[in-house]
Amino acid sequence: MSVTAPLGFRAAGVAAGIKSGDARDLALVVNDGPSRAAAAVFTRNRFKAAPVLWSAQVVSGGRVRAVVLNSGGANACTGPAGFQDTHATAEKVAAALDDSAAEVAVCSTGLIGERLPMEPLLAGVETAASQLSRDGGLAAADAIRTTDTVSKISFRRGEGGYMVGGMAKGAGMLAPALATMLCVLTTDADVSAEELDAVLRRATSVTFDRLDTDGCMSTNDTVLLLASGASGVRPGLAEFERVVTAVCADLARQLLVDAEGATKAIAIEVVGAASEDDAVTVGRAVARSNLLKCAIHGEDPNWGRVVSAVGTTDAAFEPERLNVAVNGIWICRGGAAGDDRAKVDLRPRDVTITIDLSAGPHSATVHTTDLTAAYVHENSAYSS
Amino acid sequence: MSVTAPLGFRAAGVAAGIKSGDARDLALVVNDGPSRAAAAVFTRNRFKAAPVLWSAQVVSGGRVRAVVLNSGGANACTGPAGFQDTHATAEKVAAALDDSAAEVAVCSTGLIGERLPMEPLLAGVETAASQLSRDGGLAAADAIRTTDTVSKISFRRGEGGYMVGGMAKGAGMLAPALATMLCVLTTDADVSAEELDAVLRRATSVTFDRLDTDGCMSTNDTVLLLASGASGVRPGLAEFERVVTAVCADLARQLLVDAEGATKAIAIEVVGAASEDDAVTVGRAVARSNLLKCAIHGEDPNWGRVVSAVGTTDAAFEPERLNVAVNGIWICRGGAAGDDRAKVDLRPRDVTITIDLSAGPHSATVHTTDLTAAYVHENSAYSS
Repeated sequence: MSVTAPLGFRAAGVAAGIKSGDARDLALVVNDGPSRAAAAVFTRNRFKAAPVLWSAQVVSGGRVRAVVLNSGGANACTGPAGFQDTHATAEKVAAALDDSAAEVAVCSTGLIGERLPMEPLLAGVETAASQLSRDGGLAAADAIRTTDTVSKISFRRGEGGYMVGGMAKGAGMLAPALATMLCVLTTDADVSAEELDAVLRRATSVTFDRLDTDGCMSTNDTVLLLASGASGVRPGLAEFERVVTAVCADLARQLLVDAEGATKAIAIEVVGAASEDDAVTVGRAVARSNLLKCAIHGEDPNWGRVVSAVGTTDAAFEPERLNVAVNGIWICRGGAAGDDRAKVDLRPRDVTITIDLSAGPHSATVHTTDLTAAYVHENSAYSS
Repeated sequence: MSVTAPLGFRAAGVAAGIKSGDARDLALVVNDGPSRAAAAVFTRNRFKAAPVLWSAQVVSGGRVRAVVLNSGGANACTGPAGFQDTHATAEKVAAALDDSAAEVAVCSTGLIGERLPMEPLLAGVETAASQLSRDGGLAAADAIRTTDTVSKISFRRGEGGYMVGGMAKGAGMLAPALATMLCVLTTDADVSAEELDAVLRRATSVTFDRLDTDGCMSTNDTVLLLASGASGVRPGLAEFERVVTAVCADLARQLLVDAEGATKAIAIEVVGAASEDDAVTVGRAVARSNLLKCAIHGEDPNWGRVVSAVGTTDAAFEPERLNVAVNGIWICRGGAAGDDRAKVDLRPRDVTITIDLSAGPHSATVHTTDLTAAYVHENSAYSS
């Protein structure tokens, strides 16, 4: 399933030898149409990897025939030679499909600053093209993993019977603008590139954009949405946006739960905000407090670390009107101690911190994880 | 020594019973004049603890007779009752000294959100007042420790023979605006309150303000500078600023080295910036990258994590002109791989990361530490 759940898509995932060992490291997703409409959102990091620069050009045309993705190397900070490597990869896919490289998007993930091993990579493209199939979605999702312990896939059926499917990777460097990740979404609905673009921007802004596990923004973030039109269904856009958002939210949740070293999935729910921007700002500030993330790891409902993070923002609120609940217990009321903190049960994996700014009707939820010794160990040893 | 190194100051540090156990937890520093000129800088957190609100009022008058400091409780987020506790503490000091509470500054550090135990605290003020002495500086510095493993003290002699002394506390929550901390600086130079204010703002802006161990800003940050004038020396202001800055830098270094769980002292040196603000912005972004801090802990010269943090800022630079050195080896040149990273020796405790933005003549250095499992353990177990 995953990207091959909708009609009109084939995929493959192979071990090209980019990574050491026998693990799959190259995925190919092909849109057989009849439509090739596509949209994408990319990292806002000013260091954009070569495949991001390339794919942004491809997607600006509104059409994508295929996406080739590799793990085992980010091809970021590799200069003009790295860009040529990306170009050569797209050309190889185009040749295998007898199509144009200008409609082949490329995604890479792995270590920054090193060139990709092009010989095995290009050979892998040929193998992948020969293995493309309607049930290749799982192998493709497996091939894009780095420190991900499991593949992330999702699909939903829309009104009238069209499908939206997707796969994603990402475990560390999940942060600000986009949660750092690669994601390919597919649909057999008949939707134009402009409509896909609008829907994708709104869907990612309330899902992947609100995931912040370690505050680190990557150089390679890419979310692609491809439409084949093969179902013949032309959905209502509002309903289509709901389905795409649901698939994004499902994948975002899978990324969160698999975040490096995490033992808690923390929802920072900000209510009573003067604007949605204020709510996101406050949620993000709290999600980035290492001290709070350590406290939740220790199952300590330390609301002082919540308010001290809220106090660093410029959101509209009065300190003496702020309320904080942890798992439903309002342990901070009016900016001071409230209900008995001993009543808070922090043993479940899911933790909800509710912050009431008492400043307006808006709200937003930002998702993060706890900070653990396992995160430190994983990121002390692994070069990414 | 410490705050009693300059003439005209007495101090004491006692165990009042605010903390559990027999540890010292209350300090008193008294300026016997002839001058009482004083200045201070405070946290920019919008949740300001009661003692911060109180002391800001006191210092606005430009005169401070005494400072009373306690560990074992921050008296932050304690509402009007907490403010009354601070006021009562200042009144108690004033009564013991037969002076005015309007010239008594108060500092508190410890857990947010809980009221202070006023009975032992006020009794402790009386004990401390009875033990004030010219050699009480060390006991005072000991009394303000929380998770600090050692006392932080410093002093320097200025031209003409005047002295500047100081004590500080701070181990976690060292961050943005001010490194989160309490610090009392004293001098027997004859300097007006306005001059002290200007000197203190400049000195802290290049020392404590550039310390960022965990990105968390406290509710209680306070740096006080008191002048007794007892040496009779009226220093040149530029020279005086150099001496005060040297004492601040020394104390900041002691805070850094004692930061919770740290095994590395990392200097992020940003050069070639279009402005000093740009240099500080870039330094701070890098200092807050958990991924980089983990990599340095693992002695991995991962420059990809440096550039991906630089890329999140709005500082003026071109990605393809950025250079990064770790301990003097330029492993990233022109935004791509440079010298052999195997040449980087990361075994020493001190690590220097140099970032050349190639965009102008300005520079700044931000200091941080590595992120370790010990930091996680300490902050999972300790409520602050």
